[in-house]
Amino acid sequence: MDDLIEAIGELAVHGANLQTGQILGVQATIGQEDLVHAVAGAAYERGALFVDVFYYDPFVKRKRIAHGDPETFGFVPPWYGERMLGLGDTDSARIGFSGVVWPHALDGLDPQLLGRDQLPWLKETPNVIDDRSTNWCGVACPHPHWGELVHPELPPEEAYERLCDELRHIYRLDEPDPKAAWDERVGALKASAEALNERRFDAIQLSGPGTELTIGLLPTSFWQAGDFVTRKGVRHLPNIPTEEVFTAPDPERVNGHVTSTKPLVLRDGTIIRGLRVRFEGGRAVEIDADENADALRTRCASDEGASRLGELALVDREGRIGPLGTVFYDTLLDENAASHIALGNAYAFSAGEDDRDRLNRSGIHIDFMVGSPELEVTGITLAGERVLVMKAGAWQF
Amino acid sequence: MDDLIEAIGELAVHGANLQTGQILGVQATIGQEDLVHAVAGAAYERGALFVDVFYYDPFVKRKRIAHGDPETFGFVPPWYGERMLGLGDTDSARIGFSGVVWPHALDGLDPQLLGRDQLPWLKETPNVIDDRSTNWCGVACPHPHWGELVHPELPPEEAYERLCDELRHIYRLDEPDPKAAWDERVGALKASAEALNERRFDAIQLSGPGTELTIGLLPTSFWQAGDFVTRKGVRHLPNIPTEEVFTAPDPERVNGHVTSTKPLVLRDGTIIRGLRVRFEGGRAVEIDADENADALRTRCASDEGASRLGELALVDREGRIGPLGTVFYDTLLDENAASHIALGNAYAFSAGEDDRDRLNRSGIHIDFMVGSPELEVTGITLAGERVLVMKAGAWQF
Repeated sequence: MDDLIEAIGELAVHGANLQTGQILGVQATIGQEDLVHAVAGAAYERGALFVDVFYYDPFVKRKRIAHGDPETFGFVPPWYGERMLGLGDTDSARIGFSGVVWPHALDGLDPQLLGRDQLPWLKETPNVIDDRSTNWCGVACPHPHWGELVHPELPPEEAYERLCDELRHIYRLDEPDPKAAWDERVGALKASAEALNERRFDAIQLSGPGTELTIGLLPTSFWQAGDFVTRKGVRHLPNIPTEEVFTAPDPERVNGHVTSTKPLVLRDGTIIRGLRVRFEGGRAVEIDADENADALRTRCASDEGASRLGELALVDREGRIGPLGTVFYDTLLDENAASHIALGNAYAFSAGEDDRDRLNRSGIHIDFMVGSPELEVTGITLAGERVLVMKAGAWQF
Repeated sequence: MDDLIEAIGELAVHGANLQTGQILGVQATIGQEDLVHAVAGAAYERGALFVDVFYYDPFVKRKRIAHGDPETFGFVPPWYGERMLGLGDTDSARIGFSGVVWPHALDGLDPQLLGRDQLPWLKETPNVIDDRSTNWCGVACPHPHWGELVHPELPPEEAYERLCDELRHIYRLDEPDPKAAWDERVGALKASAEALNERRFDAIQLSGPGTELTIGLLPTSFWQAGDFVTRKGVRHLPNIPTEEVFTAPDPERVNGHVTSTKPLVLRDGTIIRGLRVRFEGGRAVEIDADENADALRTRCASDEGASRLGELALVDREGRIGPLGTVFYDTLLDENAASHIALGNAYAFSAGEDDRDRLNRSGIHIDFMVGSPELEVTGITLAGERVLVMKAGAWQF
């Protein structure tokens, strides 16, 4: 699998569009060392000044939750945030790895206690995203444990091979020129975003099994896709893979109920299955789930904006993840398989200047999937006109 | 080996004397995760506020040296030092792991280029040692690769078992109460230090095969052993194991030549064999070695004090490391097997107030072994009286 790891490392550095002389901050989990080394090699070959790797260790978090004082679980040393803000101050590049490594590291712990410890999430991360100071890219890192989780019906080695085959396809590494293939796909996504921007919908309605949700948009809510540009003008692909077109809702105007169509895996590895959320006046007033609802409830209580929406994203059926029919237990992949919404912080550049103060603000940003072939997406204009936007995963205009 | 790892974790937290409510900074290398988890468990059980682990990855350093721009190798992001100073500002605890993990990680790289990249060493570390803000402990972490390096004549599994057996003995884990055993040994070392302090030697002469070196002492050079006390009064054992009695030399009065009696392993894993150094007026004016002399020369050129001595330490034959006759390629163990000197920074509390400004200052502190059964140590008083201090590893007074 070494060729796959090397290729993902190259794509990550390409996605972040690392510039000569930049610091590159890498966020990984122990067990993902091979991809760290591939990224470091590609980065230094491209002229990186310094590759600064932070390894998150979920077993240390486990020790804290099991033996520490729950009253202190909100504490993080100030230098964690200072490092993140420092990457912003120096206009550095960032690469983060998703992908499951230790699916059972936090098994059996009290989800409510787990929710009090934010790590590896940092509340300063939205700052450096919003001020567009860093050029960044998130990629998913293969790991044998991940293969076993995703394909439990196969013997472990085959499960990992199957995962790697899927990832090669998802990363478009089976194309003659994967970078060109990404340019083409991002181009198509941007065209869909532009078509949505022309319509200037006042709200979007999601209808499907267990879901009847109306999401208001701000007057200048802006649909975008695929690439960002830093304040210094560095274009970058913040996610590889990316298959989504997204915007920011009006945090005051979300009403109805929604049922998640895929398991939600929190950054600390907690898996929430069968999630159902009811919204009233923008707030998530009821959060239920078949498993671990408490972990999400705790996060949604962490600040004022944590129970409101910060993102609405539509994913068409032309992406490569949805058709595989695989549940990856990894938000980066699963969110690009299906349309989704996110609780918590909105990207500041998802709306125009006039509405920026109305965007949702929070220390969290948690995506969960609501898309399925049965989901119908309807746009509602200010005049009350209803326009079918997506049906069976296909754009309708 | 799990019991050994757990026991070392307990000893490390005992050595650092972690206080309730303290942050604990842990410095480890990838591959040492098991001991990190043992330390984290013991620390949280004892009331730690937060265990902050930094994993050093030598393969990322390898990528830098192999592919990066040599002109930039002196650069470290400012938040590396800020984290260390932050641990001091918050009067935190620190635990660091030595022990070989990846003996070949940096093989084949230019030692001079390697010397330009200080990591994992931080120039801010001497600050938090000198201001006595942190209570800290360094321990050696077992690893199968280390076993293979130390006992290449054995099959790998046996080599690791042999290393673990040696470590159990060295850590005094074969005593009924290892903590009490350490208290007793530290008591004996402190008695030797007090005897040396009573004599008030003006200089110490080292004589042995390839060594004829006279090391001047400052009027208030102070011999100490085994335990430190923080500015807040927290007693701690900075090294486990510890078998040494040490002081700071006069950095202007070192003359003669010295031959290292064991391989010197730099923090980045570079091994310097057959080291010979000639001093004139305190400065190392000639540095030669059978292997990798350049790596040391580069470090000694890194600042004004880097070519002068900051420590002289005497190790008697009652310690548990020397009698094993094993070369561990690990300074923490090897320095406690034999008398040694260190290039670079002196501990500020190794001399009285009056002489503190005369102590050697540097961003480096590199110990190398000069002790052997053949080494004779002689004390010279201001009046010129010569007193035999140590012969065949035994105190002579």
